[in-house]
Amino acid sequence: MKDFIIIGHKAVTDTFSLNDLPGAAGRMDILCRCVNAALFLSHDLRRDVRVFLIHKGGPSPPKLVRFEGSAVRYLSPDERSAASLIKKALEKNIQDFWTESTPGISVRNGDLEGLLKEMGKKIIYLREDGEDVRQKEFQEVFDPLFVLGDHLGLTGEEERIVLDYNPEIMSVGPLSLHADHCIVLLHNEMDRNIFRTPRIM
Amino acid sequence: MKDFIIIGHKAVTDTFSLNDLPGAAGRMDILCRCVNAALFLSHDLRRDVRVFLIHKGGPSPPKLVRFEGSAVRYLSPDERSAASLIKKALEKNIQDFWTESTPGISVRNGDLEGLLKEMGKKIIYLREDGEDVRQKEFQEVFDPLFVLGDHLGLTGEEERIVLDYNPEIMSVGPLSLHADHCIVLLHNEMDRNIFRTPRIM
Repeated sequence: MKDFIIIGHKAVTDTFSLNDLPGAAGRMDILCRCVNAALFLSHDLRRDVRVFLIHKGGPSPPKLVRFEGSAVRYLSPDERSAASLIKKALEKNIQDFWTESTPGISVRNGDLEGLLKEMGKKIIYLREDGEDVRQKEFQEVFDPLFVLGDHLGLTGEEERIVLDYNPEIMSVGPLSLHADHCIVLLHNEMDRNIFRTPRIM
Repeated sequence: MKDFIIIGHKAVTDTFSLNDLPGAAGRMDILCRCVNAALFLSHDLRRDVRVFLIHKGGPSPPKLVRFEGSAVRYLSPDERSAASLIKKALEKNIQDFWTESTPGISVRNGDLEGLLKEMGKKIIYLREDGEDVRQKEFQEVFDPLFVLGDHLGLTGEEERIVLDYNPEIMSVGPLSLHADHCIVLLHNEMDRNIFRTPRIM
């Protein structure tokens, strides 16, 4: 299972308008694009992927929204589609345990620290000064948990929490990219490792 | 200059609602995500990129919309932002020559065949059975023109037009991906070639 955690520092924790995802919804557009990048193939979904969105915006942070590629329905590639499903999740009576809002999408109270502790997986933390993913065989980490920030990166406190887990710190290339673009590049690297043939090795 | 042509077979050629990009606007969401993938870096734009969208949907196809990274303004990463600028372009009195609708964005009547002829560049045609981009040094094609289809790929007629130019037929990986994800992977490959160091070679 490939897991992606994306931290939305401004992403609201209550219902929102689908017509202003970057503004009033607190850069919800970033989280929606990450859902797309993590889950979509051409005419198919990646069933072996889960996406965890951490919403840290008002009025009642933090909340977690989870997309499970194996079960998700009613999701189209456009931002508004993902946003609509996130909105339905945030409109639930959110508790301290997962509640399914629509098939494959669940919501709960929770933060980064608790989530990492529960998952107990090898963490790959994307940072510009990390080791190039092409230098690293992803086969060695076949059950990865990726942690990515939004446009604000990770705060010092969030980074401290992640570093406590002794993560692999990795980079996808020479330029600073949006989180969703990083996810596309990570998937490609893993796809290539899985389908690697002697010709390409 | 890196040029990307994306063919939107259903993309409308008149004004449209920003609230239904995949439906009534004819998969306009795909073109918007391609604009994002082609032009955005984290907190910056790729100034050496142009994007040409070919709109082949009703009521008056074909139309061309051009985004120039060196000049574009008022563009944010979200789909709705790109869509809003495309909409403004389509609302112009569209002629047989380029008319600027907002800074860095222009529109005209035109089709794939005419555009390729005018540009006269080396074409890289993305197709699943193409040569792996990692087998090819992009330095050899430092002024590339990429041609990509939308969710419908290229029609037989479009492919014939492209093949007449003896393009490089290339692939970005082992799985079939959305056009915008392909663009992210192409940029990464070119970025790596530009910033390549002896350690990575």
